[in-house]
Amino acid sequence: MKRTDLALEARELWRENTASALPPGAETETREEGGSTLEALAVTSGEAAEALGKGVGKYITITPEALLRREEGAFEAAAALLGRELRSLLELPEGASVLVAGLGNEAITPDSLGPRTLRHVLATRHLVSSLPETFGAFRPVSALATGVLGNTGMESAELVKAVAEKLRPDAVIAVDALAARRLGRVCRTVQMTDTGIAPGSGVGNARKELSRGTLGVPVVGLGVPTVVDAATLAADLTEQAGLEEISAADFGEYGGGMMVTPREIDQQITLMARLLGYGIDLALHDLSVGDVTALVG
Amino acid sequence: MKRTDLALEARELWRENTASALPPGAETETREEGGSTLEALAVTSGEAAEALGKGVGKYITITPEALLRREEGAFEAAAALLGRELRSLLELPEGASVLVAGLGNEAITPDSLGPRTLRHVLATRHLVSSLPETFGAFRPVSALATGVLGNTGMESAELVKAVAEKLRPDAVIAVDALAARRLGRVCRTVQMTDTGIAPGSGVGNARKELSRGTLGVPVVGLGVPTVVDAATLAADLTEQAGLEEISAADFGEYGGGMMVTPREIDQQITLMARLLGYGIDLALHDLSVGDVTALVG
Amino acid sequence: MKRTDLALEARELWRENTASALPPGAETETREEGGSTLEALAVTSGEAAEALGKGVGKYITITPEALLRREEGAFEAAAALLGRELRSLLELPEGASVLVAGLGNEAITPDSLGPRTLRHVLATRHLVSSLPETFGAFRPVSALATGVLGNTGMESAELVKAVAEKLRPDAVIAVDALAARRLGRVCRTVQMTDTGIAPGSGVGNARKELSRGTLGVPVVGLGVPTVVDAATLAADLTEQAGLEEISAADFGEYGGGMMVTPREIDQQITLMARLLGYGIDLALHDLSVGDVTALVG
Amino acid sequence: MKRTDLALEARELWRENTASALPPGAETETREEGGSTLEALAVTSGEAAEALGKGVGKYITITPEALLRREEGAFEAAAALLGRELRSLLELPEGASVLVAGLGNEAITPDSLGPRTLRHVLATRHLVSSLPETFGAFRPVSALATGVLGNTGMESAELVKAVAEKLRPDAVIAVDALAARRLGRVCRTVQMTDTGIAPGSGVGNARKELSRGTLGVPVVGLGVPTVVDAATLAADLTEQAGLEEISAADFGEYGGGMMVTPREIDQQITLMARLLGYGIDLALHDLSVGDVTALVG
Repeated sequence: MKRTDLALEARELWRENTASALPPGAETETREEGGSTLEALAVTSGEAAEALGKGVGKYITITPEALLRREEGAFEAAAALLGRELRSLLELPEGASVLVAGLGNEAITPDSLGPRTLRHVLATRHLVSSLPETFGAFRPVSALATGVLGNTGMESAELVKAVAEKLRPDAVIAVDALAARRLGRVCRTVQMTDTGIAPGSGVGNARKELSRGTLGVPVVGLGVPTVVDAATLAADLTEQAGLEEISAADFGEYGGGMMVTPREIDQQITLMARLLGYGIDLALHDLSVGDVTALVG
Repeated sequence: MKRTDLALEARELWRENTASALPPGAETETREEGGSTLEALAVTSGEAAEALGKGVGKYITITPEALLRREEGAFEAAAALLGRELRSLLELPEGASVLVAGLGNEAITPDSLGPRTLRHVLATRHLVSSLPETFGAFRPVSALATGVLGNTGMESAELVKAVAEKLRPDAVIAVDALAARRLGRVCRTVQMTDTGIAPGSGVGNARKELSRGTLGVPVVGLGVPTVVDAATLAADLTEQAGLEEISAADFGEYGGGMMVTPREIDQQITLMARLLGYGIDLALHDLSVGDVTALVG
Repeated sequence: MKRTDLALEARELWRENTASALPPGAETETREEGGSTLEALAVTSGEAAEALGKGVGKYITITPEALLRREEGAFEAAAALLGRELRSLLELPEGASVLVAGLGNEAITPDSLGPRTLRHVLATRHLVSSLPETFGAFRPVSALATGVLGNTGMESAELVKAVAEKLRPDAVIAVDALAARRLGRVCRTVQMTDTGIAPGSGVGNARKELSRGTLGVPVVGLGVPTVVDAATLAADLTEQAGLEEISAADFGEYGGGMMVTPREIDQQITLMARLLGYGIDLALHDLSVGDVTALVG
Repeated sequence: MKRTDLALEARELWRENTASALPPGAETETREEGGSTLEALAVTSGEAAEALGKGVGKYITITPEALLRREEGAFEAAAALLGRELRSLLELPEGASVLVAGLGNEAITPDSLGPRTLRHVLATRHLVSSLPETFGAFRPVSALATGVLGNTGMESAELVKAVAEKLRPDAVIAVDALAARRLGRVCRTVQMTDTGIAPGSGVGNARKELSRGTLGVPVVGLGVPTVVDAATLAADLTEQAGLEEISAADFGEYGGGMMVTPREIDQQITLMARLLGYGIDLALHDLSVGDVTALVG
């Protein structure tokens, strides 16, 4: 069983297992923009959803090649692209309020994408009243790190729901680490989707769903693949080596709590969390990259 | 106007302003134990409460002199004393659950006592199910850093209440930074009280009350003085210099957002937060200092 | 005795104590640029140096008003101005190597400017060989946090000297926290000077001099005032209140280890350290603000 | 090629490849003590050194089983055992000075053992003069994080040497992350050896040797395995699955910059770094676990 949270890889698996590029009821479109590749997948029918294992909705995958090569000006371009796509997916009326939820555990590097992204998200809601001359014209944005709340023993989804009921935001952005099938994708692509965060996402911990269905307002799921799990690795390794299929159970100690990551995972997640945070700020406010640096770093 | 959150200083002010040691309806008792001085104040009547500006209840002030001199074995002794007194103030039945709320903003050093204390508090609630063989026998403890929640724009007290309604703990410990009148007390005493956290506590930010009256369960307020505000300093300075009384307004820029702290405030708060965290763990579970070090550091 | 590390305040004290604007042998020039005020002071004679208590050399003080008001685009403008002035003060030949030394103790907030600035400084020296395709064209820059080295028990200046002897950089930038006379200047101005770091700078700890005289290469001192010491405060307070001069000794406990800082000192130093770090990167390399964000955050 | 830094695994590989338990010139001894297993290996001849791939000297491996099970009192016991063994390996005269070097990069979790251990090491050298009443009787200990120094572009070993030449310590303790062959050993054993740190240790980065030969004083290497490299994993996986031997080259992308770690690597390294730091403090000074907590946390 190969596990992936990426629409891109779900499509790839479909292509490997069938002769066709896409199931009926699914459409895809790819374009290059300012050093990044953007692939949009629209799942429009229940049949396509079942075939791909991805709910009905839009999935946008951005691979910021120029940024990954550390090219000049690439961060501004990638953050701006991310901001524009997120803004377009959210379709927020002026002044609409947003709750940004960072899921995951800061103490486990590959699970820390959500809380690390929040470090760069400008939470304006409490500033509007205390510093109106500076923040009066900003959209009200709240930030919630559920990992810290996780110490209360409440489920992340339950907590987002409880806080959303009090704050009544017009939309929710839920940021979480994703699992990929291929190591080559880890910390190299950003996925955003209007289907929210699906159950079983992240580094393998069951979390309840966060979606329009459970929260009553639009929920955009935003994430980056940060791990490949050991079973998926094992299956891939044997295939690549031209061996017969073997099960994860054969691998004993590797089956359970192990994960495979790039050696420089901390630095890569740091960069991706910064990109996501800046993208969110640029989507929600009219700011430059330098403004975000001055306001939240 | 001299501002203090310390029962010890409220009593001191009473003594300075009247001829008597204490108002009727208040009792005090001092003892030395293992290198610390402990002063207990009981306020038993409304008249005494009004006279002292401190609600009806018990106030325990611990000054860990041996620890402040970095004497051998002093940390174990002070943490154990704190643990015993806190346990006795809480009077918890076996297995009773506790919510520990850390108030304050981690990014402002003198306001960071609450969240820093939480770093050393063992939150067991979510561990009982995931690691029953290790944590099955522990009391369920939840930890909540309201400062991070503060990014949501909800009041700290409102959030503690919302979470307490969901979790229904049998008692709450609220940790917060306090304001002192004398610089000599900053980061040198611990105060705990069964009256909870009074409005206006902390570094001058109005926070709503956390008490048995507002939460419906026993609430112990636990804190350490971390600042003297500029107005109090100004008044004290002029008195010490034998000058006439002058008002804070005379001091222009010093009146507002300034605070006076010891030069080594970060290190001192680090030590006090560790002491409080260990004290809480020792009060709530049967652990040694080394066990706490291994479990939460 | 009023203590200041700021050329701006040295000039101010001269003006208060004499009838003249400047001593002979000193010149000043002020201009506004992109939301910042820049004051340049040139001390050209030994007499002027003695009169002002500042060595012969250039002093540039930048007050980034627009940034302090959090205006749009202000960070880019202030970082660019800082970068240009620093570049002009350094006069580096192409490819010349630089050692950036961050002085001070990260654990003491007002003394943490140096190490915090280093977090945003791109140290390229070790990257040129490991990632030549990305960093091959960069100037070799080394970063040294002496505070951590301080744990070795060697003096900061001695350590910078030892490392400089091994690395043989073409220039040194020494970043340190400064002491101001007026609270209103704390975390609001940046000073850079080609005289290096003078003895006794910073939060009152004697550190040996870092200058062309002691290191053999040009040394630029770069700093921000982060504290007013208690004695200076006391003297100022009494003056403002129209009282007679009193000495710091009158203030007992306030005289020694106390310091006065703005309530939000952590956030302010965070912003100033970011500004300094970005300014250094822009001075030493051809980068945009977004490039710096992607590379070092 | 299976890579390991562990003497325990070198012996294991010898046993797997030959019929004998140990080569001539090597001796081993195992005992249990206070919840830990201790295995001592003495390599006494050049032939044994070559056969095992481990230099002539003593290797002590401690597996703190009780601590890994989070048993009560296990941290005190394990830290005390580590302290006693380290003290015995160092054989320091009274008052002898020590330099503790933490190798590795704090930004890469599995390489962060060295710098994280330093957080818990009491650096007394600079305190003896500033706080003689508290630290006057302590042994002078200096701490050096070479990772930060790594930003200067000097080799870690070169820097330790440069600092050692200035400070002239009587002994050096070098702490570094190690590579293991088996995932089951990652973050579960501590190795100390009087042979210092061998070249090629750590997470695969070539570092020059730190030993009595290069530093002129006794050097104890202290480490914990934190990774298995991808090639070793691949070889092990295929063996376990009963497959023929295949080379790492077969695994394409997995060969290079990937590593395999337990999911909870951050927390496990945090605990191991704390254990090592406390062990060093207990070896070098007469302190209790609580004293160390109060002094360095």
